[in-house]
Amino acid sequence: MLITGTVIADPETVIDDGAVVIEGSTITAVGKADALLSEHPDHERRAFDIVAPGLVGGHVHSVQSLGRGIADDDELLDWLFEAVLPMEAAMDAEATRAAAELGYLECLESGTTTVVDHLSVNHAAEAFEAAIETGIRGRLGKVLMDKESPDGLLESTDAGLAETEALIGEYHGAADGRIRYAVTPRFAVTCTEACLRGCREIADRYDGVAIHTHASENKDEIATVEEATGKRNVHWLDEVGLTGPDVTLAHCVHTDESERDILAETDTVVTHCPSSNMKLASGIAPIHDYLERGITVALGNDGPPCNNTLDPFTEMRQASLLGKVDARDPTRLPAETVLAMATINGARAAGFDRIGRLEAGYEADLIGLTTEKTRATPLHDPLSHLVYAAHGDDVVFTMVAGTVRYDGGEHVGIDADAVRERATRHAERVVEAAGIETAGR
Amino acid sequence: MLITGTVIADPETVIDDGAVVIEGSTITAVGKADALLSEHPDHERRAFDIVAPGLVGGHVHSVQSLGRGIADDDELLDWLFEAVLPMEAAMDAEATRAAAELGYLECLESGTTTVVDHLSVNHAAEAFEAAIETGIRGRLGKVLMDKESPDGLLESTDAGLAETEALIGEYHGAADGRIRYAVTPRFAVTCTEACLRGCREIADRYDGVAIHTHASENKDEIATVEEATGKRNVHWLDEVGLTGPDVTLAHCVHTDESERDILAETDTVVTHCPSSNMKLASGIAPIHDYLERGITVALGNDGPPCNNTLDPFTEMRQASLLGKVDARDPTRLPAETVLAMATINGARAAGFDRIGRLEAGYEADLIGLTTEKTRATPLHDPLSHLVYAAHGDDVVFTMVAGTVRYDGGEHVGIDADAVRERATRHAERVVEAAGIETAGR
Repeated sequence: MLITGTVIADPETVIDDGAVVIEGSTITAVGKADALLSEHPDHERRAFDIVAPGLVGGHVHSVQSLGRGIADDDELLDWLFEAVLPMEAAMDAEATRAAAELGYLECLESGTTTVVDHLSVNHAAEAFEAAIETGIRGRLGKVLMDKESPDGLLESTDAGLAETEALIGEYHGAADGRIRYAVTPRFAVTCTEACLRGCREIADRYDGVAIHTHASENKDEIATVEEATGKRNVHWLDEVGLTGPDVTLAHCVHTDESERDILAETDTVVTHCPSSNMKLASGIAPIHDYLERGITVALGNDGPPCNNTLDPFTEMRQASLLGKVDARDPTRLPAETVLAMATINGARAAGFDRIGRLEAGYEADLIGLTTEKTRATPLHDPLSHLVYAAHGDDVVFTMVAGTVRYDGGEHVGIDADAVRERATRHAERVVEAAGIETAGR
Repeated sequence: MLITGTVIADPETVIDDGAVVIEGSTITAVGKADALLSEHPDHERRAFDIVAPGLVGGHVHSVQSLGRGIADDDELLDWLFEAVLPMEAAMDAEATRAAAELGYLECLESGTTTVVDHLSVNHAAEAFEAAIETGIRGRLGKVLMDKESPDGLLESTDAGLAETEALIGEYHGAADGRIRYAVTPRFAVTCTEACLRGCREIADRYDGVAIHTHASENKDEIATVEEATGKRNVHWLDEVGLTGPDVTLAHCVHTDESERDILAETDTVVTHCPSSNMKLASGIAPIHDYLERGITVALGNDGPPCNNTLDPFTEMRQASLLGKVDARDPTRLPAETVLAMATINGARAAGFDRIGRLEAGYEADLIGLTTEKTRATPLHDPLSHLVYAAHGDDVVFTMVAGTVRYDGGEHVGIDADAVRERATRHAERVVEAAGIETAGR
C-alpha cells in the first residue's frame, strides 16, 4: 500500500505532499509522493490530509472502560475504594472481555495504535484475547495485589506470580510479536516486598518482558509507603528492583530530588497522565524537570473513570497547556515535544523498538486524519493542528502492523455496535452487582 | 417542533425520555415525552440522544479565526505584538467577514449558540453582518484602542466612540433582538481614561447596551496599568465606570482581595478562559474564590490563536480539571457547576435574560447530541458525559431562536465549504501581508 498526504514522519519531519510505502507489516519507504508514486505504480493507494505515526497510550486501563462516568467529582479514596476497585472485583470474564474490547476500539478509532495496559487481577487473559482480536499493539499485564486489597482482588503472592508466568507463556510475543507482556504490580501500597522482588525476577527471566506500575501518584500513597518501608516510594521501588530501562512508572507526580536522580540514573520511563492527575487532583507532575534530566516521559490517558476518554489528542494538548501554565512560560512543552512524548517516548514506555515514527524499517502503525473541518481552517501548521486543535474524531484511518483496523468511521473485522452493546449491558450489571452509586442525575 | 431525548434542562434537571416543545422562537413546554407527545400530536418531531441548552461562549474573538495556529508556543508579548495585532491590522473588510463567518460556524457546529464577541478595531460591521447571516445569537462590539497601539489599530478617542454609537444604531437589537451590542475597549493598557469613561457613558445612554473588556489577564498588564494610574487594574476600571452588572470582564487571573471585593459588590461578571490562560501561561484564575463570593463566572474559549478551537465542551472539561488540580480537591467544580458556567452564567455574561436553560418562556436555543459513540459507552450519567467525555463533534443539531442552523453534520442556509475556502484564502493573504512568521514546520 502507498499512503499519501502531509506526512508528519516524526516531530521534526513534516513532508508536504509526502507518501509512506508499506509492504506487509513494515514501512519500506517514506518521502515525497511524486517519487514514490512513480517507483511503486501498482501499489494500492490511499490519500489522507495528514498521515502520522500511530500514537502510544503509555498508561491505560482498558478494563476500567465499564466505569466511565461512575465516580466523577469524588475524593480519590472514595473513587478508588467505593467505585473502581469494587467494579474490578465484580467483573467476570465476559465483562472483562467486553471492557477491554471497548477500550481498544476507542483507542484505535481515536488514533492510538499501541497501549501499555494495566489490566486487572482477574481474567487478564480476556484482555489479551481482546487485544489479539481487535488488532491493537500492546504491552499488557495482569495486576498483582497481595496486601491491603479488597476481597475479590486480594490474592496470594505465589498465585499472582504463578499466573503472571502462565500468561507470559501464553501471550508474550503473541500475534507475531504485536502483544508483549509487562509484569504489573498495582502499586507499592498493595504489594508485598516478596511480590515486588518477584516481579523483577520474572522480568529478568523472560526475554523482552518489562515492568509497568503506578508510582507516587498522590501524597497518601507515598506517606503509606514511607510508613511501611521507611523510604520514599521511588527509593523503595529502586531497592526491590522496580527501576530501570525496562520499567514504566505511571504518574510520578510527587518525587523529590533524590528520587528524580534515581529515575534519571536508572533510565526508568515515566508516563505522564495530565488529565487524570488534574481530575483526581493528584497534583502536577514535574515534567519539565524530568525532561531536563533526560528522563523519557511518555503520555497516558489512564482509565475512563478518571479521564473520561481515551482520546490521545486530548492528552497531548493537555500536557502542553498544563506544562505551560505550571512553568508560567508559554514556550515550554511545544507541539513537537508533546508529539514526541506520544510517539517516540511512548515507544520506550511500550518497549517496542520500531514504532513511534514513520521511517523505513519501522512497523506500519499509522493514522490518517481529515482536515476537512472548520476547526482545521485555516491550517497554517500541521503539527500545531495535530496537537492543539485535532480530536480523535478527526482520525479516519488506523493501521497497525500493516493491517487496516479502522477506515472511514468503521472498524474493520469487528462488529463495533455489538461491542458497545455488550459493554453497556455488562456495565449495568457490574455496577449494580458491586453496589456502586453513580451520580444518578 | 417537538424534540425528544434525555433532556438536560439545566444543571439540576435531567429528564429521561423528555421532550421540548417549540413554537416560533420560544420554548413553550419542557417535560416527559409521553405527555407532551399526546398533547402535541401534529408537531414536527425530532429525536436526539441528549438535548441540552445551547452553550454560551462568554468571551470569544471570532475575527481572530484566521490566526488559528499562527503563534503557538510563543511568549505572550511576541504572540500579541508580532502575530495577533499585526494580523488584525492587516485584515480588510472581506477578511474580517470571512473570519467572523468561520468563527460562528465553528461555534454553531460545536454547540455554542450565543457568543460574547470581542471583534477588532476595523470592519466590525462585517462581523455583525456575519452574525446575522449565520444565525448565531451574540453580544458583539467593535474594539477601542486609542493609545499604546500599533499602526492600523490605533484610532482617536472620538473616532472610536463615534463609530461605536453608529454601530449601536445600526445593529443593537438587530435580527429580532438576537444581536446586541457591548461597548468593547480592548483593555486598560491601550485605552485612555477618556475612552474608558466614554464607554460607560455610551452604555448608560442606550438601553440594553453592555460593556465587555479584558482585565487582569497577565502580570505585565496590571503592572503597566498600575504605573500609569497608581491603581490596581480592577480599582482603575471601577473608578472609570467599567464594573457593574452590565460589565463582563474576561480573564481576571491576577486580582487581589480588594479587587475581588469590588467584583462581588458591583455584581460584575467574570469570564473564565482556562485553556487560553494555560496556553499563554497567564496563570490560574481564582475561580473558587470568585464563586464563593457569589461572583457570576462564565466560560470562554478566547480566540483560535490561543486555544486553538472554539469547542465549548473543551472549556467545560478544562475548567473543571484545572479547578480541581488547582484546589487539590477533586470535588471542586463538579459537572453541574461548569455546565452552569457555560449556560446560566453565560447568559449573564451575554446579557440575555431568557437563554441558558430549557424552560417554557425561554428562547429556543438548544443542541442535540448523539451518544452513539464508543466514548459515550457506557453512559451511566448524561451530565458527566456532557462535561467530561463529549466533544463538539457529538453535536448533530443546533437551533437558535427556533431556527435550525446545523443539522446532521451540515450547516443550514449557508455554504460552509465556501466559508472555509474563503477563510483559508484570506488567512494566507493576511498572514503574508502582515509579515507574520508561522512555525513553518
